[in-house]
Amino acid sequence: MNITGEMLIGQSAVRGAEGTLRAVNPATNEKIGPDFGAGGVTEVDRACTLAQQAFDSYRATTAQQRAEFLEEIAGGILALGPALIERAAQESGLPTARLEGERGRTVGQLRLFASVLRAGNYLGATLDSALPERTPPRSDLRLRKIAIGPVAVFGASNFPLAFSVAGGDTASALAAGCPVVVKTHNAHPGTSELVGRAIQQAVAACKLPEGVFSLVIGAGNEVGQALVSHPAIKAVGFTGSRQGGLALVRAAAQRREPIPVYAEMSSINPMFLLPHALAARAAKIGTAFVDSLTMGVGQFCTNPGLVIGLAGEHLVQFQEAALQALKTKAAGTMLTPGIHDAYVAGVERMGALAGVDTLGQGQAPAAPCAAQATLFSTDAATFLATEQLEDEIFGPSSLLVACRDEDEMRAVAEHLAGQLTATLQLDEEDHALARKLLPTLERKAGRILVNGFPTGVEVSYAMVHGGPFPATSDSRSTSVGATAIDRFLRPVCYQDLPGALLPIELQDGNPSGLSRLVDGEFVAA
Amino acid sequence: MNITGEMLIGQSAVRGAEGTLRAVNPATNEKIGPDFGAGGVTEVDRACTLAQQAFDSYRATTAQQRAEFLEEIAGGILALGPALIERAAQESGLPTARLEGERGRTVGQLRLFASVLRAGNYLGATLDSALPERTPPRSDLRLRKIAIGPVAVFGASNFPLAFSVAGGDTASALAAGCPVVVKTHNAHPGTSELVGRAIQQAVAACKLPEGVFSLVIGAGNEVGQALVSHPAIKAVGFTGSRQGGLALVRAAAQRREPIPVYAEMSSINPMFLLPHALAARAAKIGTAFVDSLTMGVGQFCTNPGLVIGLAGEHLVQFQEAALQALKTKAAGTMLTPGIHDAYVAGVERMGALAGVDTLGQGQAPAAPCAAQATLFSTDAATFLATEQLEDEIFGPSSLLVACRDEDEMRAVAEHLAGQLTATLQLDEEDHALARKLLPTLERKAGRILVNGFPTGVEVSYAMVHGGPFPATSDSRSTSVGATAIDRFLRPVCYQDLPGALLPIELQDGNPSGLSRLVDGEFVAA
Repeated sequence: MNITGEMLIGQSAVRGAEGTLRAVNPATNEKIGPDFGAGGVTEVDRACTLAQQAFDSYRATTAQQRAEFLEEIAGGILALGPALIERAAQESGLPTARLEGERGRTVGQLRLFASVLRAGNYLGATLDSALPERTPPRSDLRLRKIAIGPVAVFGASNFPLAFSVAGGDTASALAAGCPVVVKTHNAHPGTSELVGRAIQQAVAACKLPEGVFSLVIGAGNEVGQALVSHPAIKAVGFTGSRQGGLALVRAAAQRREPIPVYAEMSSINPMFLLPHALAARAAKIGTAFVDSLTMGVGQFCTNPGLVIGLAGEHLVQFQEAALQALKTKAAGTMLTPGIHDAYVAGVERMGALAGVDTLGQGQAPAAPCAAQATLFSTDAATFLATEQLEDEIFGPSSLLVACRDEDEMRAVAEHLAGQLTATLQLDEEDHALARKLLPTLERKAGRILVNGFPTGVEVSYAMVHGGPFPATSDSRSTSVGATAIDRFLRPVCYQDLPGALLPIELQDGNPSGLSRLVDGEFVAA
Repeated sequence: MNITGEMLIGQSAVRGAEGTLRAVNPATNEKIGPDFGAGGVTEVDRACTLAQQAFDSYRATTAQQRAEFLEEIAGGILALGPALIERAAQESGLPTARLEGERGRTVGQLRLFASVLRAGNYLGATLDSALPERTPPRSDLRLRKIAIGPVAVFGASNFPLAFSVAGGDTASALAAGCPVVVKTHNAHPGTSELVGRAIQQAVAACKLPEGVFSLVIGAGNEVGQALVSHPAIKAVGFTGSRQGGLALVRAAAQRREPIPVYAEMSSINPMFLLPHALAARAAKIGTAFVDSLTMGVGQFCTNPGLVIGLAGEHLVQFQEAALQALKTKAAGTMLTPGIHDAYVAGVERMGALAGVDTLGQGQAPAAPCAAQATLFSTDAATFLATEQLEDEIFGPSSLLVACRDEDEMRAVAEHLAGQLTATLQLDEEDHALARKLLPTLERKAGRILVNGFPTGVEVSYAMVHGGPFPATSDSRSTSVGATAIDRFLRPVCYQDLPGALLPIELQDGNPSGLSRLVDGEFVAA
């Protein structure tokens, strides 16, 4: 498939005339062809209007039809073959093996939502029988969830496949029955076009209305703002910086009709080293921690950017093992020159803060966008008094906080802002302390891990990739896993509808074979 | 129980010193004692701080304990006996029988949430088994929902019991495990204090931390703004005007940490008269419609404020029957002088709009706050061209819109803003037209009714009392019915936690006897 530099508006390919942009290979800082034509409010309006026009007929498709559509997209992405991986590697600096894994994740996500659709639990089908003899009589009431409306999705820089054009936001919105308008991330426009064309072809192959999917390109912020402000758009999915996420939240709140924004923004993912675990295996944890910290050049939302332990010999052992491991880590190429520059500035800023020591660094960078992993340390008193120490530095940087005692460790936990994850390294003798920390960590994080590292985010039913602000703009949701579909649904109650007018999922006799809540009792399919 | 005019801050009763206020009997415009002492930011801060302190231990109570607490509140409200009903009648102008019914609804709501807690489905318990042999290995992942944090509740004017201090917002938040700080509605401070004291006593009787419940009073908007802005507050429940709801939405968005606001605001609840039903029983529908319109002096969020039919003899029959019925309707006392004045102004404003006829009115008012029911009419072209015709007039006023044909009827449906309800009067021969309208109405409303009237809102599992903006600020939720609890929950995922540290609902062997989703399959309790 050729990359043409066009936007995909429904079934058309349109060359934008509001400026041009080119991808950059961060490994070489060289531009990669072709030129992409950026669009403006006209193209956004056209894409959103098509999405609106497609909405009722798309959401009226059966769950089975939408499942097949998602599987068609998955097949289309796989059919792009090595060309997709090569282009994504050029545009992101990410290694081929990682991108192949990410493609598997992307395809797996689409297939998971196909399963979710076939199971049907997402509908929340609920039936209350009429009670005509009661005073006053009770009507027949039936509830199901329906799609919220066309959704705007913003591709993320750090997962050019799994959190981008056909990523989790798009997959869950399409599963819910929502048309999607994606704004490409300008770091990987070629990858975006390839995947976008695969979706466009799946729309045609499944004979869906063309407005189910569009892909727009913007040179600055104008296209994104226009997208979030368009009256047809009813929800927004975003993964990126806090600044970018908050700009979208503000734009959505200023609409005549405010809409939900699911922005996954910033998290430093604290890891607590409980004393018995630390005494038992400080060096082992320190080494494994650095592997997690430097994986993917630290460019994961769940990167462990904060480590909290009790001051003492075991923490020193942890630190020494971590520094030893750090020295072996080559400087990896970051996703974009901008991300690299922000990392360098963040590391400089943190190193200059009073009370913060730079413990050590990985190998020196030898390429334009390569990042040197960095480990800082401070004490809990400084951490508690210095707000900037909680700022996320996107990349392979982490801060080790030494606490005087368990109370101070708990004070650090209580002090933290919202997080995607919180990790406990513990042994059985640490359970008492863990029990004291857990209520705080539940309030702070969407996922709590024991004796692992947060950088793997499983795509499954029980995953929560979310958390209180500023980790996300909406702690009631997850952007990874089966329940991500809930973000794009709203409940509707049908009162006394004749059977012939009821949605099939709510009809008598359960023709769809769903699990339903009937008069308060759960009736499995 | 004496009414003292104090605020209830945890287990204390505190007399506010930031001005005083008195209830007014709308039937006589006379003030009712005692004076209430209004509070300010100090009392709000004290109440919110107590709520925060109570949060972890309150949410750690078992579902059974919280169910008993809700039942204790229900018992306490019943134990207030006729004194509660008398006070509520004085403060609201509502008849005794209606208030007794509303008390039953309030108590029933608390008991419904006790059942919801005991069933446990609200937890969303989900387990994904570890797959240690997979490449890469999958961790053990378990999800449950937990309470979001302390909740601010604003009492509504029109249901001094069921949507106020111990109303649906409070009941669902307490059920979820959230401490609640209520701001009284100043139209019924005495009723609020009585119910508040019943909750306060239930907190003590159940040996819960005192911060689980507080009741604050404000003379102006300052207390409400301080409440929504307090860092301890994590969600807001509100039922009232669009202006009031939007002010809270804005205040919540301006916080350092934005929080969800569930504001149920304004809806005109369109009713569509489909042609065959109208031909068959125009007069019967017209008469029943006026009963619904004037019930409770039209002071329901679901009052039918818009009727859409095809112009012609049958619509004339409907209109004549409605006018006939209207003439028999006495002017009822509205809730407050302010609400009465707004109704009179709204009726005047609508009557003065070009293209709008005042078809008829109910009996003339004979008391200070009595409202004369009013029926207006216009044609669809005028309706489509006049934005103000969609403004809610809170009270017994409705607008009849005559359409040229079915296409114009569909255009009116498509033109509507978000609604709590949409009603279809239909016969079997109308199904084809209903099928054309339903996709639009699903997009517009939270509840769709056939051959009924929207003014009864059942408290049950399948109820949705919600809908797209401006009906509410969050179409993903309901403020009535079992799923109202979802508003105050957020998901947390536990990865590889040792059994001893797992919440009981997620432990192996299902000791809580819950229905759980295990590896994607629903396993009933």
